[in-house]
Amino acid sequence: MCSTLLYNHPMFEFEVVAKQGRARAGVFHTPHGDLLTPVFAPVGTQATVKTLTPAQLGELGATLVLSNTYHLYLRPGDELVAKLGGLHQFMQWSYPLLTDSGGYQVFSLTQTRKVDNDGVTFRSHIDGSIHRFTPEKSIAIQENLGADIIMAFDECAEPYDRQYNEQAVQRTHAWAERSLRAHGRADQALFGILQGGVFPDLRAASAQFIASLGFPGHAIGGLSVGETKQETHAMLDIVMETLPEDKPRYLMGVGTPEDLLNGIARGVDIFDCVLPTRLARHHSVFAPEGRLNLMNAVFAADSRPIDEGCRCYTCQHFSRAYLRHLVAAKEMLAGTLLSIHNLHALISIVNDVRAAIIENRTWRTEKL
Amino acid sequence: MCSTLLYNHPMFEFEVVAKQGRARAGVFHTPHGDLLTPVFAPVGTQATVKTLTPAQLGELGATLVLSNTYHLYLRPGDELVAKLGGLHQFMQWSYPLLTDSGGYQVFSLTQTRKVDNDGVTFRSHIDGSIHRFTPEKSIAIQENLGADIIMAFDECAEPYDRQYNEQAVQRTHAWAERSLRAHGRADQALFGILQGGVFPDLRAASAQFIASLGFPGHAIGGLSVGETKQETHAMLDIVMETLPEDKPRYLMGVGTPEDLLNGIARGVDIFDCVLPTRLARHHSVFAPEGRLNLMNAVFAADSRPIDEGCRCYTCQHFSRAYLRHLVAAKEMLAGTLLSIHNLHALISIVNDVRAAIIENRTWRTEKL
Repeated sequence: MCSTLLYNHPMFEFEVVAKQGRARAGVFHTPHGDLLTPVFAPVGTQATVKTLTPAQLGELGATLVLSNTYHLYLRPGDELVAKLGGLHQFMQWSYPLLTDSGGYQVFSLTQTRKVDNDGVTFRSHIDGSIHRFTPEKSIAIQENLGADIIMAFDECAEPYDRQYNEQAVQRTHAWAERSLRAHGRADQALFGILQGGVFPDLRAASAQFIASLGFPGHAIGGLSVGETKQETHAMLDIVMETLPEDKPRYLMGVGTPEDLLNGIARGVDIFDCVLPTRLARHHSVFAPEGRLNLMNAVFAADSRPIDEGCRCYTCQHFSRAYLRHLVAAKEMLAGTLLSIHNLHALISIVNDVRAAIIENRTWRTEKL
Repeated sequence: MCSTLLYNHPMFEFEVVAKQGRARAGVFHTPHGDLLTPVFAPVGTQATVKTLTPAQLGELGATLVLSNTYHLYLRPGDELVAKLGGLHQFMQWSYPLLTDSGGYQVFSLTQTRKVDNDGVTFRSHIDGSIHRFTPEKSIAIQENLGADIIMAFDECAEPYDRQYNEQAVQRTHAWAERSLRAHGRADQALFGILQGGVFPDLRAASAQFIASLGFPGHAIGGLSVGETKQETHAMLDIVMETLPEDKPRYLMGVGTPEDLLNGIARGVDIFDCVLPTRLARHHSVFAPEGRLNLMNAVFAADSRPIDEGCRCYTCQHFSRAYLRHLVAAKEMLAGTLLSIHNLHALISIVNDVRAAIIENRTWRTEKL
């Protein structure tokens, strides 16, 4: 069960230390330390994982943090971040960082952007000013930010629109090649992104093309954007046949506890999602009995922690009653404490599964 | 310079370990540990010092935290807090706690409360429901909450209204006696509060009367509520002549760095104020050059910490530019990081002055 594959990149070796079926436990070496995979990355959109200090993030077990190129380009500006020593220094995160390409955010501005084969022109959501992203621009911004893992500029299409997806895949491929050519920093691993909506042939072709370009890692884009779980899994199954085993695989924007388990089982190594922190800000937590909304009056006198078995700061100290009080009183501490728990819950899942893969134990649990 | 005075109360001994003029350095023993005085208490209105975990509060040097009887009575309810093990357990603060009597908040509801000699009837600011506080009720609530230091129920009047102050002082005295009679818990120190507006004779009489009742500590109420600094100092000078030296003196709701220095110089041992956390939520910080509003664009590229000499988590890690970015982007982490700095700044002032009193060094600095 324990094969070791090695990808040789000066600063970004990836070792698969154990396999169980298609699931893998690995180590991804980066200039800011080793990532033990599978890994779940909290999202720090504006150079902060909302409500948490880097100290709290480290304490709850985060190793990789994602930040958004689109947001940081607009505010405070990637050139300013570079002048201040780069994103690690700016936000004081000393472990690995990942930036997305900005593509997903820009394509989400459906009413205020215009795509052509060269790039995308869009209006800022902050002040309406006009900007343009091309693959070269996205890479330049990401080089200014200086994350360890950066992403090729891609086009994320509606999952069910065949014609649009054919076009988006073509653009994504051309932009992947341009992103590669534009990228210069040896201390950053540029990952390629494949697309293809819910169409098996497009997904297979995209995986094959992107894998042929020699990226040090591969990302699966355009999933968990509205399609069914069955379709997500089918697309994952298809691309995993093609994506090389000796490089890390990143399923973008995923997900729920179930999504993590399903992704790992299919060979995914890296995940990110705003879900745990967004749920926290809406009073919702992962608990043994499922998702709980702590605004509910049934928790008003509940002296138990969210999860008796959880080792996070929140569960080690606070009752549901106290957390419910903070939520009802609109106290900002609620967001902090619930974010700590939710992130810790997802990170614990990937850590537990990693240990199970290494020890060849069963790990698929429907606990959460 | 170093006289040791001792007040014998089973659980609340107060030792003055050093004096310098009227300023004192002391130790106030409580069931939840020793308070080194002078001490500044952050305010945790709703059983949370806004935006901060107890771990962060402890790390920045807080020892005493104040919470508000009025707010906790309304939400989540003092009986619920008692059922959940008391306020220390509820909010997970293992160091000393202080609760106010609710009087100040109730009298602030000028449009929706009615005072008589027995107590105050008022409408909740949350849902408009009608409630009544009497001295006995305030003490019962504070016994349910279980703070180490609790306060007699008092009436805080407009500082310049002679007639109202005469009446308020009389009521405050009668209510102090009733508070004393109502109080039963030996593990709580009930402090008396004196009033008197800006009127020297009322202040002197009130200090004399309250001091005669045998409270284990004394508080000066009704200052920093609109009067001039000269008047504040004059009133402090008057009451300090009367308040016994062997019991701690608490100046309620104060204050600014200058207020702390002026209070300590006149013999105050305990302070509390919402100012540092409130300023933080409005982007304002204590800095060597004075109060700074970090929303100001001049900080956008400022790579320095708020205060080069500060040892708080915020100054040890983050640039003004990053903090300004968090403020501009309306990120909740701004409130957390600025609160850490502002509280640490005030706590450092009282700690530094305490050391200077003990070592008989000059300490009056106009730094902040």
